[in-house]
Amino acid sequence: MSEFKLHILGCGSATPSLRHLPSCQVVEYRGQLLMIDCGEGAQLSMRRMGLKFSRLTHIFISHLHGDHCFGLPGLLSTLALHQTGGTVTVHTFAEGARLFKEMIDYFCRERSYELKFDIIDPAKAQTVLDLPGLTVESFPLRHRVPAVGFIFREKPKPLHLRGDMVKFHNVPVSQMKAIKEGADFINEDGKTIPNAMLTTPADRSYTYAYCSDTVYTPALAKIVEEADLLYHEATYADDAADKARARGHSTASEAARIASLAHVRRLVIGHYSKAYNTEERHLSEARRIFPDTMAANEGMTIPIDCRHQL
Amino acid sequence: MSEFKLHILGCGSATPSLRHLPSCQVVEYRGQLLMIDCGEGAQLSMRRMGLKFSRLTHIFISHLHGDHCFGLPGLLSTLALHQTGGTVTVHTFAEGARLFKEMIDYFCRERSYELKFDIIDPAKAQTVLDLPGLTVESFPLRHRVPAVGFIFREKPKPLHLRGDMVKFHNVPVSQMKAIKEGADFINEDGKTIPNAMLTTPADRSYTYAYCSDTVYTPALAKIVEEADLLYHEATYADDAADKARARGHSTASEAARIASLAHVRRLVIGHYSKAYNTEERHLSEARRIFPDTMAANEGMTIPIDCRHQL
Repeated sequence: MSEFKLHILGCGSATPSLRHLPSCQVVEYRGQLLMIDCGEGAQLSMRRMGLKFSRLTHIFISHLHGDHCFGLPGLLSTLALHQTGGTVTVHTFAEGARLFKEMIDYFCRERSYELKFDIIDPAKAQTVLDLPGLTVESFPLRHRVPAVGFIFREKPKPLHLRGDMVKFHNVPVSQMKAIKEGADFINEDGKTIPNAMLTTPADRSYTYAYCSDTVYTPALAKIVEEADLLYHEATYADDAADKARARGHSTASEAARIASLAHVRRLVIGHYSKAYNTEERHLSEARRIFPDTMAANEGMTIPIDCRHQL
Repeated sequence: MSEFKLHILGCGSATPSLRHLPSCQVVEYRGQLLMIDCGEGAQLSMRRMGLKFSRLTHIFISHLHGDHCFGLPGLLSTLALHQTGGTVTVHTFAEGARLFKEMIDYFCRERSYELKFDIIDPAKAQTVLDLPGLTVESFPLRHRVPAVGFIFREKPKPLHLRGDMVKFHNVPVSQMKAIKEGADFINEDGKTIPNAMLTTPADRSYTYAYCSDTVYTPALAKIVEEADLLYHEATYADDAADKARARGHSTASEAARIASLAHVRRLVIGHYSKAYNTEERHLSEARRIFPDTMAANEGMTIPIDCRHQL
């Protein structure tokens, strides 16, 4: 069972249409829910997808355009009716923290949980969250306003102990943690048993990268390199490449080019302009460049820790 | 065809559920759309119901609880992408105007329409809008925070000229407006023709009254007296009458009692607590007291200028 997956709650752009909701995703990591962007209706989508409010601990806002954050007041108010104790941290730029804090302090004075705001500097790459097992980093994107992407990166996992060798060398329990982290073992006779004799390789650590909204920026490829899953906005298809550039957005082909340059395993595109009635063009244009492309859709869940090469 | 009708966009309470959206209604009057309350998702509901953004001119907020106004930032931003010219006025309390103005000034600096805020004093009854043919009045409700209801009242309509008599008495066109408004006619010989000889009665003027959120307040009956349609909140059924009182809400029976005391023509109830899975109880309890009761539901349109007694 997947312990690290992505839920798509909204993948439209600008104004919500009857086809797509504004931007919102939830990264589920070992039972915790980490939200990325919070477009209007996010709380309703959580309900619809059966994502429990009580498991939501962090919300990351990529930039201060309404279609990425207007769901915050409603969601943060609703949490007050459900959350008992616990802390929810909103990671956003200073101005967003000020505006939403004022709003929520007025409308939701009595909160049953602790609400924190953590300030992201949009100008630099930084670690914005450090959990056991996972870090979240932000990095600058290029859009009409300051914007950042996020990388959810699993930390290196412990090596696997070889049961037979642990038994053979009489490894005491007290030593096991160090060995799983790579230490050699010195037995009672003072003899060093090299780590490689006692362990098999650790499980792979997985990475999810989120890039929205951004104009095509080849330098991003280095940052999201070898991600297991990359979400890259694809507001337009090739027919509107000029419009994409002018508005600080990308085409599906450009998203695929980043995926290809970055050697990611899989790409998921979204943030579709409502000018399109289907995403078939986006998808076929992207797949020509990067075959392992999916088109995001509301309600979709994608495992990030997918063991098989697709 | 109805020129004066009510669209139900959301009729749930507190947190949106999978059954109901938070409070939002649109009064359609001769093609203009006048919104009452603007819960999260209002803009999407407008799209869903085919209500054109360009026809929206006024938004009335009954009180500053999130489930009655968190759709404002999204709606007002989306209007900027659709509205070309024109004015949209948000009628709300001073603190709401301050908070939402700040929000929208940050997120939607460049607006293609004029956005005005008009301050409602929650402590008194007042006319908040005077249109040709219609006035909108606010009046205090009793809730946990300051709250007002609204009455949409058609002005008296002109009398109908009797074609035969107009011809017989040689009434010039220049006099017709005054006669339709009730004046007598003095003919060329200086003889007074009484108005009643020249006209038949005006069409009936219709009234819609909105009461949400409020605790049961019999004095409201006088204010909404003889409304053609009364919306009264009915958060709870009889089983939770104590809870209703404690939380500043009403039961369906209490809504019906107001309708009965006020001799309104029809009652529509809504603002259902999400504790209920159906509104059957609300409806049957209300109908026991006031038979002409409807249960509001998203997507419903109700003519206010309904000529027939139902």
